[in-house]
Amino acid sequence: MKKIINSADTFVRDTMEGIICAYGDKVKLLHEDFQVLVSGYPAREGKVGVVTAGGSGHLPVFLGYVGKGLLDGCAVGEVFASPSAAKMADMIRACDKGRGVLCLYGNYNGDRFNFTMACEEVELEDIQTKMVLVKDDVASSDPEHADKRRGVAGMVYAFKIAGAAADKMMNLEEVAAVTAKALNNIRSMGAALSPCIVPKAGKPTFAIGEDEIEIGMGIHGEAGIEVRKMMTADEIAETLVGEILKDMPLKEGDQVSVMVNGLGGTPLEEQLIVYRKVHQILSHLRVRIRMPHIGEYATSMEMAGLSVTIFKLDQELLELLKAPAESPFYTNTNK
Amino acid sequence: MKKIINSADTFVRDTMEGIICAYGDKVKLLHEDFQVLVSGYPAREGKVGVVTAGGSGHLPVFLGYVGKGLLDGCAVGEVFASPSAAKMADMIRACDKGRGVLCLYGNYNGDRFNFTMACEEVELEDIQTKMVLVKDDVASSDPEHADKRRGVAGMVYAFKIAGAAADKMMNLEEVAAVTAKALNNIRSMGAALSPCIVPKAGKPTFAIGEDEIEIGMGIHGEAGIEVRKMMTADEIAETLVGEILKDMPLKEGDQVSVMVNGLGGTPLEEQLIVYRKVHQILSHLRVRIRMPHIGEYATSMEMAGLSVTIFKLDQELLELLKAPAESPFYTNTNK
Repeated sequence: MKKIINSADTFVRDTMEGIICAYGDKVKLLHEDFQVLVSGYPAREGKVGVVTAGGSGHLPVFLGYVGKGLLDGCAVGEVFASPSAAKMADMIRACDKGRGVLCLYGNYNGDRFNFTMACEEVELEDIQTKMVLVKDDVASSDPEHADKRRGVAGMVYAFKIAGAAADKMMNLEEVAAVTAKALNNIRSMGAALSPCIVPKAGKPTFAIGEDEIEIGMGIHGEAGIEVRKMMTADEIAETLVGEILKDMPLKEGDQVSVMVNGLGGTPLEEQLIVYRKVHQILSHLRVRIRMPHIGEYATSMEMAGLSVTIFKLDQELLELLKAPAESPFYTNTNK
Repeated sequence: MKKIINSADTFVRDTMEGIICAYGDKVKLLHEDFQVLVSGYPAREGKVGVVTAGGSGHLPVFLGYVGKGLLDGCAVGEVFASPSAAKMADMIRACDKGRGVLCLYGNYNGDRFNFTMACEEVELEDIQTKMVLVKDDVASSDPEHADKRRGVAGMVYAFKIAGAAADKMMNLEEVAAVTAKALNNIRSMGAALSPCIVPKAGKPTFAIGEDEIEIGMGIHGEAGIEVRKMMTADEIAETLVGEILKDMPLKEGDQVSVMVNGLGGTPLEEQLIVYRKVHQILSHLRVRIRMPHIGEYATSMEMAGLSVTIFKLDQELLELLKAPAESPFYTNTNK
């Protein structure tokens, strides 16, 4: 295992310390707790809070989206492990300004279990909460069981929409509703070329051949839908977009945002080469792309590979996507 | 070789097409030439032009910094190979608005040779040029031969300073002088854990052991100063900062910007863990850090490793660093 770390035991804490050393003027630890980060940007009084939580190892997801017009708070656990319900409850309390808190997170058992407990706990204190789950990974379940799908890079779009809706002073019901509407229009699918190494495990999460690619791989190394011989960039784009369009057809005149997300070890050049083909496919369908997102938005540490996310926009969603947003790792200038 | 590409022959062109598909409203091809990109942002009339050129394979260097308050133009060659003098001359002509053009680029033989020819050519047409070379890599030569040093991630700071100076309507002499002053205050050093693969070569640029790290490695795989057994993140930070401080001592009260730059295959978590230690070392010296840059700014495709750059600031340089800037891959909000 060759990682630039101090020890597997201090990986998460050292990362959080790095964030605070660099961006302590913008984001803050909650009660000196190195697992909970809250926004230090000036917030509108009485705004609905938007929070998330999940395992570490996916930066910029999740901590990187705590900021202005994005998340108000984020709790993280160990690598690929949920933080406790107690941490989540502390975060919800800190992010409630009297109008309630949206808990927006990926559909994983641990996170769902702990967020449910945390919400029950704070509701006894009269803090209103709503939960919206991200289930954008079309590879993780067939359409009949779409409710079982996992949350992957599409959650970044959901953070953006929820953050913008809260910033516009929508109430908790409204923020939850528009975020749920956005998620109904968001689909992702990924492909992996190499595994990643969980620091405490010290060995790769899975094996993949030197000339193989796994289509539909999850961001923790969950099995995909098939292993294939290595393909060209254009074939990868066609495969991922093809699976997404089977699930969410698009027609002439539709507007979408597209995210090509590097999983950690894949160069920006390769992400751009895939984006090129996605752009060609959608242009051919006369679908208009707004605000492309190309880069590393949701990673699995050093995993090589990438995912494609398509977010179908209506006028309200486009305006929320275009709204100003700023965090140490995300700035919206793509207007 | 497992890369997400269509073919080695179309790697550079496909990448450039991806940039144009995504950001064609912000940056443009010069004369439909897939090797020369110019800014599409509105520019101040009569501004000095700032351009660069170099081999592909280092995104966001160089194409990613064509924008507003940054570069006006960039020519790229094949992976790790200089573009021709003719392409550079075309670019200089396009970026001259009557007040001359600063050619700002890394100290590599091919680029120096071609830029010298290009400048001679356009000077016959009465276009004024100045060349400023980036030589920030302290590992590439000892202090007595600092003039032979290579340019690495520090060039991103130089692009930012030159772009801001030109945006302030300084004349060519002044833009060149303040950029040279900045470069006198910029030092970098890197460490690599794995090689990268040049698409046309199809095999790794060098070999490194499974438990080894190479200190001082260049961004094309040029040999470093030593190969060591794998170290902790803190030891890597101490080594890189130690070598930089030997070359450019800092004292209490100094202000610097720090860049921790991932070389392509290294997770953001690991970059933050190294930043944490760099911050501790500099804080201990009572040196103040302004506008940290943590992320992938200058890469070698999938190479694992990172570099540290320290940029010593005076008031003028700090103001230029803080000036607004925007490109598809760089936005200054770190004020």
